[in-house]
Amino acid sequence: MTHNIPINQIIETIKQRQPNLVSIQLPEGLKRKAQKLSETIEEKTNTHTLISGDPCYGACDIEDWELKKLGVDLIIHLGHSEIPLNTEIEVVYYDIQLETDLNNLITQVTKKLDKKVGLITTIQHHHLLQDIKQKLSENNIKTAIGHGDNAIAKPGQVLGCNFSATDIDVDQYLYIGTGNFHPTGVAYSTNKPVIILDPEKQEIREIKDTENFQKKRYATIAKAQKASTIGVILGTKTGQTRKKLAIQIKERLKKEEYKATVITMEEVTPNRLLQLGYDAYINTGCPRITYDDQKRYRKPILTPNEHEILVGDRDWSDLKFDEIRRK
Amino acid sequence: MTHNIPINQIIETIKQRQPNLVSIQLPEGLKRKAQKLSETIEEKTNTHTLISGDPCYGACDIEDWELKKLGVDLIIHLGHSEIPLNTEIEVVYYDIQLETDLNNLITQVTKKLDKKVGLITTIQHHHLLQDIKQKLSENNIKTAIGHGDNAIAKPGQVLGCNFSATDIDVDQYLYIGTGNFHPTGVAYSTNKPVIILDPEKQEIREIKDTENFQKKRYATIAKAQKASTIGVILGTKTGQTRKKLAIQIKERLKKEEYKATVITMEEVTPNRLLQLGYDAYINTGCPRITYDDQKRYRKPILTPNEHEILVGDRDWSDLKFDEIRRK
Repeated sequence: MTHNIPINQIIETIKQRQPNLVSIQLPEGLKRKAQKLSETIEEKTNTHTLISGDPCYGACDIEDWELKKLGVDLIIHLGHSEIPLNTEIEVVYYDIQLETDLNNLITQVTKKLDKKVGLITTIQHHHLLQDIKQKLSENNIKTAIGHGDNAIAKPGQVLGCNFSATDIDVDQYLYIGTGNFHPTGVAYSTNKPVIILDPEKQEIREIKDTENFQKKRYATIAKAQKASTIGVILGTKTGQTRKKLAIQIKERLKKEEYKATVITMEEVTPNRLLQLGYDAYINTGCPRITYDDQKRYRKPILTPNEHEILVGDRDWSDLKFDEIRRK
Repeated sequence: MTHNIPINQIIETIKQRQPNLVSIQLPEGLKRKAQKLSETIEEKTNTHTLISGDPCYGACDIEDWELKKLGVDLIIHLGHSEIPLNTEIEVVYYDIQLETDLNNLITQVTKKLDKKVGLITTIQHHHLLQDIKQKLSENNIKTAIGHGDNAIAKPGQVLGCNFSATDIDVDQYLYIGTGNFHPTGVAYSTNKPVIILDPEKQEIREIKDTENFQKKRYATIAKAQKASTIGVILGTKTGQTRKKLAIQIKERLKKEEYKATVITMEEVTPNRLLQLGYDAYINTGCPRITYDDQKRYRKPILTPNEHEILVGDRDWSDLKFDEIRRK
């Protein structure tokens, strides 16, 4: 697999906009490309660059205010598609396409698909979608591609916290992409089977066991009911800020006689929660922290929806996957 | 030991200033006081509070820009003394004094002091200094208390990165306080003996082995000389930003044919450096990261002074402890 960094386009953008100080932000898997990119920009333009060395987990995770104080006036953000954010500094997004050969995988996967299939993917692979749709059609497999909400740049694209492109009438999903992070979210969010076509590992696999996930969530809510003090986490990353919701939840908890506080956090880590010492937490920041990392934490962490079950405003049967959707 | 949180003063400040949204920041050792403090403020005033759940290692570590975007208009910062910073939001500092009985310790320590002694301490214990001076004088021990630079609020006070209060004509130092963090810095910075009077553990101990520290620093510089790519770390915490210096160092390294880039970082961690993949780093952020945590990192990290040795602008015998002083 090759990551094609559009270096000439980036140089062109910088020459046109003539910024004083440029920040380069890349997700973890591309961080090692930063040194060469920065070197090339400084050679070919007269601009100083700063590479962002902090983790970058998505288009929601834009370093903005903290760079404005340093005089940064342009952010080059690689590896994610644009989502609508109010940023202080101008951000130019470059998504990175991964080139791979899928012929073998498509032959394999057709045997596993028998009902109507929703095609989903991440930004790195969205360029493969039409070709896959065509080949599946040649094998008499019915497919549909959903259009997500305003956070979603391309048809069929999913984010870690936004599966609005799955809101279509299908029986199962075929996810084209690497890892289990996105398709796990789709399975938990939709309760439908998800088959993964992984171009990196060149393999087909399935997401199973969504029932077990739900059981764990119910157990976590039940555990949180025993709490006396509850910390409501307000994420401070640019695209993860749900301030109004965090304050509402705190006020609601107080009415139920919980001692509740809003806590700002840039990254949520087990150690930070341990230091604060609350009995339970409601996380309004990145939903995936709540779901994927629960076993790393000693105390129960709930989503906003689960908080509603906790205080009795939502029925236990109405458990929903927490997403950050944008109308 | 008792931490006296000046809760009435804090309530009074908030009533006077009538902010819309208050952030409460406490160092790690006091984080557990946050819940009660927030509860009291919200009960007694009509103000919403946000507790900062991110780590806070000093008065340099003010969350400011990232809170401005949330609408915070007053920061209550506990546990550190004020240092002069340009902040976007108004910050009110409350230092927290620790009450302890020192009579036994003073009797013990007089036996260990025979030359002229510089008295040093942290903000938590500065109120004890005059009494100790008096008692040592009664035992015929000569003492001096230095006045630090503009970052230093009280006579004899040291910070983790600023030992300007040690610039006095003495043979040894007596440090009143807990832990080894500050007195280790004093020993490395001054190369003079440091005796610790620890009110928490109720014990007297000494800092030894400063020679070994220097040897390790020389070894680290020698290792960094083999690097081909060097990352220059620019800390983004409010009081740790040395942007001009970071850019100067990058330019200097480039002249010596190193491939060098400036990297912004909020917190420096082994994993973040591993992701970036440089052969060595120069850290212009918190000096203590460079010194105290080296063994946690796989690659050599140097201070700005050590960088000068690396590129040949400073003599090897002229190794100095990196401090952030403020004229």
